[in-house]
Amino acid sequence: MTSSVANGGTAVTKLWTGDYYNEGNGDKDSIFDKLKEECGVFGVFGHPDAANLSYYGLHALQHRGEESCGICTSDNGTFHYHRGMGLVKEVFDRDKLESLVGSQAIGHVRYSTAGASRLANAQPLVFKYRGGDLAVCTNGNLVNEPGIRKELEDSGSIFQTTSDTEVIAHLIARSPKDLVEAVKDAFARLIGGFAFLIQTQGRLIAACDPHGLRPLVMGRLGDGYIFASESCALETIGAVYERDVQPGELLILDKDGLHEDRFAPLERRAVCAMEYIYFARPDSDIYGVNLHTSRKRMGQTLAQESFVDADIVTGVPDSSISAAIGYAEQTGIPYELGLIKNKYTGRTFIQPSQELREKGVKMKLSAVRKVVEGKRVVMIDDSIVRGTTSLRIVNMLREAGALEVHVRITSPPFMNPCYYGIDTPNPADLIASSKTVEEIRQAINADSLYFLSEKGLIDSVGGHDDEYNRGLCLACFNNDYPTPVEFEDAKLTSCSCD
Amino acid sequence: MTSSVANGGTAVTKLWTGDYYNEGNGDKDSIFDKLKEECGVFGVFGHPDAANLSYYGLHALQHRGEESCGICTSDNGTFHYHRGMGLVKEVFDRDKLESLVGSQAIGHVRYSTAGASRLANAQPLVFKYRGGDLAVCTNGNLVNEPGIRKELEDSGSIFQTTSDTEVIAHLIARSPKDLVEAVKDAFARLIGGFAFLIQTQGRLIAACDPHGLRPLVMGRLGDGYIFASESCALETIGAVYERDVQPGELLILDKDGLHEDRFAPLERRAVCAMEYIYFARPDSDIYGVNLHTSRKRMGQTLAQESFVDADIVTGVPDSSISAAIGYAEQTGIPYELGLIKNKYTGRTFIQPSQELREKGVKMKLSAVRKVVEGKRVVMIDDSIVRGTTSLRIVNMLREAGALEVHVRITSPPFMNPCYYGIDTPNPADLIASSKTVEEIRQAINADSLYFLSEKGLIDSVGGHDDEYNRGLCLACFNNDYPTPVEFEDAKLTSCSCD
Amino acid sequence: MTSSVANGGTAVTKLWTGDYYNEGNGDKDSIFDKLKEECGVFGVFGHPDAANLSYYGLHALQHRGEESCGICTSDNGTFHYHRGMGLVKEVFDRDKLESLVGSQAIGHVRYSTAGASRLANAQPLVFKYRGGDLAVCTNGNLVNEPGIRKELEDSGSIFQTTSDTEVIAHLIARSPKDLVEAVKDAFARLIGGFAFLIQTQGRLIAACDPHGLRPLVMGRLGDGYIFASESCALETIGAVYERDVQPGELLILDKDGLHEDRFAPLERRAVCAMEYIYFARPDSDIYGVNLHTSRKRMGQTLAQESFVDADIVTGVPDSSISAAIGYAEQTGIPYELGLIKNKYTGRTFIQPSQELREKGVKMKLSAVRKVVEGKRVVMIDDSIVRGTTSLRIVNMLREAGALEVHVRITSPPFMNPCYYGIDTPNPADLIASSKTVEEIRQAINADSLYFLSEKGLIDSVGGHDDEYNRGLCLACFNNDYPTPVEFEDAKLTSCSCD
Amino acid sequence: MTSSVANGGTAVTKLWTGDYYNEGNGDKDSIFDKLKEECGVFGVFGHPDAANLSYYGLHALQHRGEESCGICTSDNGTFHYHRGMGLVKEVFDRDKLESLVGSQAIGHVRYSTAGASRLANAQPLVFKYRGGDLAVCTNGNLVNEPGIRKELEDSGSIFQTTSDTEVIAHLIARSPKDLVEAVKDAFARLIGGFAFLIQTQGRLIAACDPHGLRPLVMGRLGDGYIFASESCALETIGAVYERDVQPGELLILDKDGLHEDRFAPLERRAVCAMEYIYFARPDSDIYGVNLHTSRKRMGQTLAQESFVDADIVTGVPDSSISAAIGYAEQTGIPYELGLIKNKYTGRTFIQPSQELREKGVKMKLSAVRKVVEGKRVVMIDDSIVRGTTSLRIVNMLREAGALEVHVRITSPPFMNPCYYGIDTPNPADLIASSKTVEEIRQAINADSLYFLSEKGLIDSVGGHDDEYNRGLCLACFNNDYPTPVEFEDAKLTSCSCD
Repeated sequence: MTSSVANGGTAVTKLWTGDYYNEGNGDKDSIFDKLKEECGVFGVFGHPDAANLSYYGLHALQHRGEESCGICTSDNGTFHYHRGMGLVKEVFDRDKLESLVGSQAIGHVRYSTAGASRLANAQPLVFKYRGGDLAVCTNGNLVNEPGIRKELEDSGSIFQTTSDTEVIAHLIARSPKDLVEAVKDAFARLIGGFAFLIQTQGRLIAACDPHGLRPLVMGRLGDGYIFASESCALETIGAVYERDVQPGELLILDKDGLHEDRFAPLERRAVCAMEYIYFARPDSDIYGVNLHTSRKRMGQTLAQESFVDADIVTGVPDSSISAAIGYAEQTGIPYELGLIKNKYTGRTFIQPSQELREKGVKMKLSAVRKVVEGKRVVMIDDSIVRGTTSLRIVNMLREAGALEVHVRITSPPFMNPCYYGIDTPNPADLIASSKTVEEIRQAINADSLYFLSEKGLIDSVGGHDDEYNRGLCLACFNNDYPTPVEFEDAKLTSCSCD
Repeated sequence: MTSSVANGGTAVTKLWTGDYYNEGNGDKDSIFDKLKEECGVFGVFGHPDAANLSYYGLHALQHRGEESCGICTSDNGTFHYHRGMGLVKEVFDRDKLESLVGSQAIGHVRYSTAGASRLANAQPLVFKYRGGDLAVCTNGNLVNEPGIRKELEDSGSIFQTTSDTEVIAHLIARSPKDLVEAVKDAFARLIGGFAFLIQTQGRLIAACDPHGLRPLVMGRLGDGYIFASESCALETIGAVYERDVQPGELLILDKDGLHEDRFAPLERRAVCAMEYIYFARPDSDIYGVNLHTSRKRMGQTLAQESFVDADIVTGVPDSSISAAIGYAEQTGIPYELGLIKNKYTGRTFIQPSQELREKGVKMKLSAVRKVVEGKRVVMIDDSIVRGTTSLRIVNMLREAGALEVHVRITSPPFMNPCYYGIDTPNPADLIASSKTVEEIRQAINADSLYFLSEKGLIDSVGGHDDEYNRGLCLACFNNDYPTPVEFEDAKLTSCSCD
Repeated sequence: MTSSVANGGTAVTKLWTGDYYNEGNGDKDSIFDKLKEECGVFGVFGHPDAANLSYYGLHALQHRGEESCGICTSDNGTFHYHRGMGLVKEVFDRDKLESLVGSQAIGHVRYSTAGASRLANAQPLVFKYRGGDLAVCTNGNLVNEPGIRKELEDSGSIFQTTSDTEVIAHLIARSPKDLVEAVKDAFARLIGGFAFLIQTQGRLIAACDPHGLRPLVMGRLGDGYIFASESCALETIGAVYERDVQPGELLILDKDGLHEDRFAPLERRAVCAMEYIYFARPDSDIYGVNLHTSRKRMGQTLAQESFVDADIVTGVPDSSISAAIGYAEQTGIPYELGLIKNKYTGRTFIQPSQELREKGVKMKLSAVRKVVEGKRVVMIDDSIVRGTTSLRIVNMLREAGALEVHVRITSPPFMNPCYYGIDTPNPADLIASSKTVEEIRQAINADSLYFLSEKGLIDSVGGHDDEYNRGLCLACFNNDYPTPVEFEDAKLTSCSCD
Repeated sequence: MTSSVANGGTAVTKLWTGDYYNEGNGDKDSIFDKLKEECGVFGVFGHPDAANLSYYGLHALQHRGEESCGICTSDNGTFHYHRGMGLVKEVFDRDKLESLVGSQAIGHVRYSTAGASRLANAQPLVFKYRGGDLAVCTNGNLVNEPGIRKELEDSGSIFQTTSDTEVIAHLIARSPKDLVEAVKDAFARLIGGFAFLIQTQGRLIAACDPHGLRPLVMGRLGDGYIFASESCALETIGAVYERDVQPGELLILDKDGLHEDRFAPLERRAVCAMEYIYFARPDSDIYGVNLHTSRKRMGQTLAQESFVDADIVTGVPDSSISAAIGYAEQTGIPYELGLIKNKYTGRTFIQPSQELREKGVKMKLSAVRKVVEGKRVVMIDDSIVRGTTSLRIVNMLREAGALEVHVRITSPPFMNPCYYGIDTPNPADLIASSKTVEEIRQAINADSLYFLSEKGLIDSVGGHDDEYNRGLCLACFNNDYPTPVEFEDAKLTSCSCD
């Protein structure tokens, strides 16, 4: 990749800002080396408040991407769109929303990469092609995108973004068939995990990859249809959940209503396990399973698999609170607020200098001395990626007076990169890829360490008994990828949704 | 009050903003008709990173005031200050912080009133007087401020703000005595609840009202001294808690170190009970009592006083989570995530129209259908003010399928206005001032309702046995005000810190 | 055109702005219904300060486009770019400029259409294609763009902007030949008036349309080469003017220096006469003719053609000052400041309401009562488009006490639309297309009216005697277009540079 | 002065800005070492559009102060105000203006000092005192302010700004008399040059210092009264000029209409000559003299006093254009555009580095090569302060090919500091205070240099024959100050309006 965006020294807020934003310092998760969520999509068909509903729907999906967002509506053949860098509440104001007229809309939230990012990559992307106007947005990652892109370039295509989405648009535009057939042909060429929303004048198309790696649900609001990456967005706007979009399915909405179609047969369902473990909101359901409930079960199962005698249980906020409560309930050890997160921390927060950090200035997380002092602590977290965060948190608890720190993780060791939309670090940096559990324990300075078993995880999620792994993709734990991933140019999710 | 600030129609973000910000629509707590916290103060003496530490300290106190903030440093006799509208992370950037040189600093966060607000009221206020430069900031409210203000005006004083703080500065400047004696004389005239920080060239003075109504702690960081409204700010910057500033105490720091003095004898300690119930951060300690722990005990006591058979316990986020867990542990009923708050909601968020709200668009809080459906729910909250919020939340749970909703409140009925810094609505609007518990139950559509007893509250907080009410002010529950409040011009906390 | 950008009600300034800006009310020239300038381009090759020089160069060209701007540099094969809505000084800050490293750059300023505008159209456009990175910017308009676009769409191309520039990029990318040959093939297909700058890794290409309709000059600064739409930008950065880029020429710069080439033979030169009359800065030279000097000559010629006895001569600021001084010098009637323009008026200025305007509140222009009261005034202007502005100004002078107002225009009647980059209103709205001079005089309430003759204009500009019309395009006056303009889809400059 | 505002490194634009703006680099006039204008005031009484009229009026006075501005209205006893850093068009938007209800208003524009500046000094200042609300704004400088301030501090006053205006408010508030008498007593103590507007509930008071050093005019709009520093602001809003406020006069407007009063007898009128020479807008009239006309006469008189044979006359834009045209008309030498100013330069413009400047990058002014090449040039300017600017401009003309440069100045040598509101550099830096005209000529590299004689200046301004110096203050040229200026603490206009 030879083209990069300008990279200024510090984050500067501009009156008339341009087409990129440069996160001055790596605020995001410089302590929390968490896996990065990818993106969220939202769509409306046949409702007069399409833009407003998209605003509230995307707001509910904000945790899936904080970097940029956008909405494109269609009104009697005219597209209206607005995209920008920042949170939904920052990018849109009343005037902008009012200008997005029409009863159809698709919208997107995009996650922030560690380095520079740019508005050009904000979605939905909007194109003109032979068939008229086309807006596309996606959540996920195409493994074989580099090969398709090269093939397109070789036949004279030009690209203005680094996004998979633009590749799809080219494939659709180059097909001589009508839209639905062109989309089906295009999708049939894609390998990866993705949820797509495509809008043309008078039509909205929703699709999931053949393994359902990335979630997508459909709901109803009055006479209108709603699509969202997570069901919490349906609840937020008062829509009624109807069903999950099935792997390989293509749902088409037009003036005649809903048409159910497929671009691929349903093979093995393999929903990303990390959606259950960490990404999705606890009030969402995926394939009928509530996330809070499933995480609480993970905590309970973990307690059954690895009880340890202790004085308190605490969870790393926010993602591990449900599991920690489950662990506490199962063991009878009281759940306490041993760790607290400052809810005001965000993009523009000035990180403490290395010097101040060494002097004890905390960033967004701190231990609660009165709660942990003199206690044996069970600390629940959802995963260990590089191990650096775990070490910091364990040490934070010890400095606050914890006598023992027992770390319990609600997933198996994370060992393999993701090709389907989760931004994983260089595989060599995954601590579990090179270290044993005992070595990890030492590295994070814990008194004991236990990872939830694969079976424990599968059982905690629950769902259909008859499916392979109950319909989960566990490749990051067990290297069992649901698609081929070995291509000359295979694309890891280095920057998801691109 | 005849002078008011301009009041525009909608919130507008400006490149060159001026001296007021007008919250376009009452976003803040339009659903949560919570009591408003007042302000937070932070001070540093004798540390080279004074401004940076203040930034992180104020950030930890952000929950005490989101409207405006400011820092004033002193460097070899030169004051540097910056104040602005917004959160700490919005008002300060690296350049601003770097320009605030010096080893002394005082800082402030101020809460947002429902209506207009203005930069002129942002603190610290900075004055020049005969003695040189003077910076003052405060948390609390003076009951007899109107009388003192009138007396000052009558003798020719002019006022540029509506703040108590300016009144204090006038009193100090008009005294012919030296600074410390002038401050003592000034404070001796004040009736109310307050914590003050005063900075002059080479001196920092901290003081609490004679009943300790508003909290203030002192800590040490290296050779430096730190003051903060709550101990969580000490922890955040790595400082060690030393002690609470005592009621009526005056602590003076200068080149010779710490001088302990008094402007009033220690009479009855009467710390605001709402700090324990709702305001202070759960990781703070006030007079040695941890807030999370005390809230969890409130939940446990509540369970003992009013057990109800149910399927799940849920807390209204964020303030009632600790208590809900306590209730669950005590009863054995599982704690579940029945209500969830969108963490991205904030000042610039566009509220749904009445029409959309009626169609089901949720604002910042929503019920988790999968969790509450078909369940008998115990819902824990910290207080009922007008009752409108409770009604909405109960209905939200019912619409999500709850079979029964049993409301349990971790405080006695809130019946009397506060004169000491908590912004209470018109007393007639306090639902408990005119309705019985049964009438309130009906008004909020609950299956049952119980308020924690006064004794239960006192015992849950704990602390010194020998103190009257264990050192708490419970006036809002029992009308037992620790100071006289009956003056011709007595000032309610209509706009706290003013 | 079915795709349009969202169109909000009022201009709103955003922290995190998105990809369009919507000029809330038609501030720009709502009184001055002037013709709109198109765009300006600037390029640097072989100078270490490429981005900084582009900043100052574009700033000097700001009058050619105030809506958006951008710079793209190339540094050892890596492109860096930034584009934004607003003036050069608003879009770039020190950090942004510093991040644009490299010794090659192309930049662009774009003019504001009356209605909405969007960042997506800001230039340079940056693409990836088979050959690597490609950045393109242009000033002008392609008459046959719709046909080429349709042909491209029919063969599967997708478009993200409405810009001619994207069409060119597609043509280049689709050619199997090497870059220079591909560019030559692409340009050979274009009909219209344009100046292009194209940047690839290690190469900069500059080109002018075969009639030289839009100006482009080359200069030298040290060892580097500079390109600019107007020579004033060379002067601003201290570069030495070398020569105008000739019609049909292709200048290629690479590591071996300058290569002179052609994509079309030099036929008839036909430089846009409006550049001389109105658009270009008075300190620029086009084909060796200084603009101030040529405008002063227009005023002198006008005086010779249509002397009128009067007390004072005044020019409509800013564009007609030079001509007015010429008229004054020729006639001996004193030049006076009869009209003044408020230099602070700009994009964010709030226009007075209709009611206030009727009460006499002036916008950006006002008459100077003391100067014009009781005087017979000769008012010099450069053109009459719709006539509405002329009427307002004449009335303004009369209200300030002018006894007579004699209007003298430094160009012939403007009767025909432009296909080459000047945004002209609907031809039916051109007052001269349907009214005689006498009718126009009445419409604008003047005592007398005279338009400079075509010959007078040609002679005033001067330049080579042997060229047809001395190398000018006068089509807007005489319908004599230098290129074919009759196509099924011929594109008027409805939105120049698109 | 021990209290200073924070001083960041670079200009940073903030969403939520605070109470100071720090001009990152000394953009303003780093080349033009011009004298700085002070401030402008504007007032409305008895007109329903008071805020809107103030907006347009202040916009017309923007040249008198670009740093900050503000408007305070009064509506049935309620004050509404907004102040901010920046231009009028930047500080106010539609919402802000609409919120400023009422039929009375006073407003202010303030000039920018070279260094930091702060919102706290933005005017009008608004106070509460015994008598109710009080808003004050001023243009000018009080010589004896330090003494009065000290006296006030000694009796217990506190100050929040460094402004003269706050001193006045204290004096008024401390007087036991009624408002008008209090104002008269207060003003009687002031020595200096000033124009004041004071607003209370139901009253507007306008006043000029006893010598009329700073201009102030009154006009009528319908039934309403308008006050403005310059008459151009009356014209802009369609008001009719009525009269200048006389030296020592106090005009009071209340529900009974206009009351004419005096706080001092009319002694010698001494209007600041620099208002005529340089500061005021050319379309303004002061005491009946139009500024353009008077400047043109200065040019004509200069031509009579110091004819020089040359090829062209050029003026330094913008202030010397009128005079240059006068010189040209008088001599018959053609006026040409030899120098041009970039109209887009402004506050946020990034100044070229020293290195780039040495390489020839121009800032806002450049010479027009084609116009001056090979010519003998007469260059007209209004004054020489330090001489550095003149040297740069002369050299610029020479580098552009001028054969000779003859500098003609429309004022006598500027030798003495101003105590009345013009920000003059350290007297030692005034080139004319230590050098002869011949030495100055050498220092600025001119072929010849001539300063307009004092008599020539006086005659060019014109006005009443019978007044001493025709009512002008020429102290900066001849040391003849109209007031005492020798006090222990006398305040030079180091930062005017403070």
